[in-house]
Amino acid sequence: MLEILGRVFGEGGKNDGFGEVRCEHDQRNPKDESAGDILNDREINCPGPGGIDAACERLVVDFGATFVNQSLLDRIERVTGAPPHPFLRRGLFCAHRSFGAVLDAYEKGDKFYLYTGRGPSASMHVGHLLPFMFTAYLQRAFKVPVIIQMSDDEKFLYKGLSREECAKYMQDNLKDIIACGFDPERTFIFNNFDSMGILYPAACGIQRHLTCNQVRAVFGVGDSDSPAKMAFPAVQMAPALPSTFGNQLFGNKTLRCVVPSGIDQDPYFRVCRDVAKKMHEHKPSVLISKFLPALSGTHTKLSSSTATDSTGLGLADTPKQVRKKMNKAVSGGRESVEEHRRLGADLSTDVPMKYLRCFFPGPDAELESIEKQYQQGLLLSGEVKKLAADAVSSVLANHQKARAAVTDADIASFMEVRQLKV
Amino acid sequence: MLEILGRVFGEGGKNDGFGEVRCEHDQRNPKDESAGDILNDREINCPGPGGIDAACERLVVDFGATFVNQSLLDRIERVTGAPPHPFLRRGLFCAHRSFGAVLDAYEKGDKFYLYTGRGPSASMHVGHLLPFMFTAYLQRAFKVPVIIQMSDDEKFLYKGLSREECAKYMQDNLKDIIACGFDPERTFIFNNFDSMGILYPAACGIQRHLTCNQVRAVFGVGDSDSPAKMAFPAVQMAPALPSTFGNQLFGNKTLRCVVPSGIDQDPYFRVCRDVAKKMHEHKPSVLISKFLPALSGTHTKLSSSTATDSTGLGLADTPKQVRKKMNKAVSGGRESVEEHRRLGADLSTDVPMKYLRCFFPGPDAELESIEKQYQQGLLLSGEVKKLAADAVSSVLANHQKARAAVTDADIASFMEVRQLKV
Repeated sequence: MLEILGRVFGEGGKNDGFGEVRCEHDQRNPKDESAGDILNDREINCPGPGGIDAACERLVVDFGATFVNQSLLDRIERVTGAPPHPFLRRGLFCAHRSFGAVLDAYEKGDKFYLYTGRGPSASMHVGHLLPFMFTAYLQRAFKVPVIIQMSDDEKFLYKGLSREECAKYMQDNLKDIIACGFDPERTFIFNNFDSMGILYPAACGIQRHLTCNQVRAVFGVGDSDSPAKMAFPAVQMAPALPSTFGNQLFGNKTLRCVVPSGIDQDPYFRVCRDVAKKMHEHKPSVLISKFLPALSGTHTKLSSSTATDSTGLGLADTPKQVRKKMNKAVSGGRESVEEHRRLGADLSTDVPMKYLRCFFPGPDAELESIEKQYQQGLLLSGEVKKLAADAVSSVLANHQKARAAVTDADIASFMEVRQLKV
Repeated sequence: MLEILGRVFGEGGKNDGFGEVRCEHDQRNPKDESAGDILNDREINCPGPGGIDAACERLVVDFGATFVNQSLLDRIERVTGAPPHPFLRRGLFCAHRSFGAVLDAYEKGDKFYLYTGRGPSASMHVGHLLPFMFTAYLQRAFKVPVIIQMSDDEKFLYKGLSREECAKYMQDNLKDIIACGFDPERTFIFNNFDSMGILYPAACGIQRHLTCNQVRAVFGVGDSDSPAKMAFPAVQMAPALPSTFGNQLFGNKTLRCVVPSGIDQDPYFRVCRDVAKKMHEHKPSVLISKFLPALSGTHTKLSSSTATDSTGLGLADTPKQVRKKMNKAVSGGRESVEEHRRLGADLSTDVPMKYLRCFFPGPDAELESIEKQYQQGLLLSGEVKKLAADAVSSVLANHQKARAAVTDADIASFMEVRQLKV
């Protein structure tokens, strides 16, 4: 059984809403031997068949999200006038909650805003870019505002960072985030320590609809944890409620919210959707992504701590470094060339191919052909590793160039409370 | 045994600091039949001998505060050049934590700031004025800044008030508070909803040193309570840490904090003192008060809900109303005049005399003489009730006059973040 956050709540699936709380664990127990896969916002380890990909898909089913299908892809193409982003077409953003309703409203002229965020860390890796690259694409495609929360408080509270470290990391991370190409007229970035004056009333409004029991069950807050961890989930949820920012950002418009989010963060927004209903607000829609696997295997995602070591892919890595690391990545290729030619690659455990799926710059048909050839043993793992390294290096080269152009003044203007172009 | 908040923590007494946690209750159980007296920040009911007065004194002993003695009174007179306030001389502010150290520093030229506060409510009664009257006296006597927290968030979260109600009550309450005579150059008033931007980093800093278990045990937060109740204690504690306001109020000075507080709020500052030590800040000093009893008896304090009904004393009451209510107050007088003359009054249960002790405008010697005559049966309860009603009416008349002069503009200037005169 999949050990997950938010076992007891959620929409659809086996557990329906707050009304019927069926608590299986007094509190989250991510080390439960019997549980097998672990996938929550603090820990990911999925040694079961299919690794994190399969675990993500089970979560989508268990918690009543909807898989992205061809019909949705076609609709997005129709509405935006361009093919959807490869992350959507190729299954990275694999599921959603009520994005159809957002498109219905959009087609009637009601825009939405996008909300995503990040807890500042010492260094970012290529996996950290995905939600921001995707959010920037959505902003371009739909011409909508973006709100980005930097949860420096979370890192201060959960990781024991000092405020100075949080501030330093944030400034650094923001260059990487802004380099993803957000529209300065349409994007507001804030950090919780400096913006709690804006968020607090909304967070309190949310908290009136939560209990300590619920937060413990969904987010795994233990008795020995800081009470701030009880309060934090509402801080992350608050920007997903349209009323939180009053008329400070969107004038007198009430926009729906769409949250592009890794599936590990889905519990926040699943709970937020229940609370939004009680607060008579639009439920936030969620676009849910799987993860880039660690180079060391598909059982877990690329983690922050590996960003700078040999097993991760840091954002400042050179093509040579990328190539070297990708060569060491866990492959689905076989022991010998002969065996590989005979059996073909095992795509389910092949890490480089997962990267290639994300970043291959060519058409989908060409990617599919590569996959097929690899699966049939016509392509060797070394060849696929080279393709993956080239694709990643190309993304990183573009990113590094864009990042170098981001100034402190740019950061300051993104962080100014102001009317956004809607 | 006295059922109290903060059973497991505190300085001195039986429970010393966070290090040694001896939790007697999994969580506060204010209805515990065996416990007898109940005295915490949400409920007070002390049917035991001596009522709330005796319960307060037991709390002082149990939690290691120090009773105000003649030597401290003499010292305050020496330092301030005037006799201490009657609330100190006559035992209302009956205990303290490390106020001696504050005076040591003061005599060397280090000033302090005073911090008190209130959760806005529909109406205030005469008991609510006591901490503000006393704080205004301390400000005049020591020429120091005052910070007043209006915890509108607390009422929103604990009492289910709407934000509009909180705002309305606050504006109303602030007129009564400002009427107590705070120095506009030395006083900063803020409300949590609008000032969380200032408080939040300090509150997070405090919360890193607390656990959910501790908050549950000290403040009685239950599993079905909102997670915001886990977070709130740090919000009330934050202004007691000198660093919270940075250099926004006191320039580059680091002032010690003194908190005039009802004993029901003492757990906040007892915990805060432990945390301050860990954060290498000055521990806040506390001046601890007992309560004005309800007119209906000395087992409980005058409560908000009685402010406007016949059993309480509202701030807008006329002398006639005060007289009428005081006449109905529980008295220590005897059944018949004859019996009274023979036995004298029972001062321990006499409500009017408690009010007279607080508000008698004449010299202490005269008050003592009245008490003695009453105890000896020379004065009748009707006569003491009249004296008490007159004393209260006189305080209310002055208050009503001062309140009428307070404008919305006055409130706005008290609430402006600015350098205070130190």
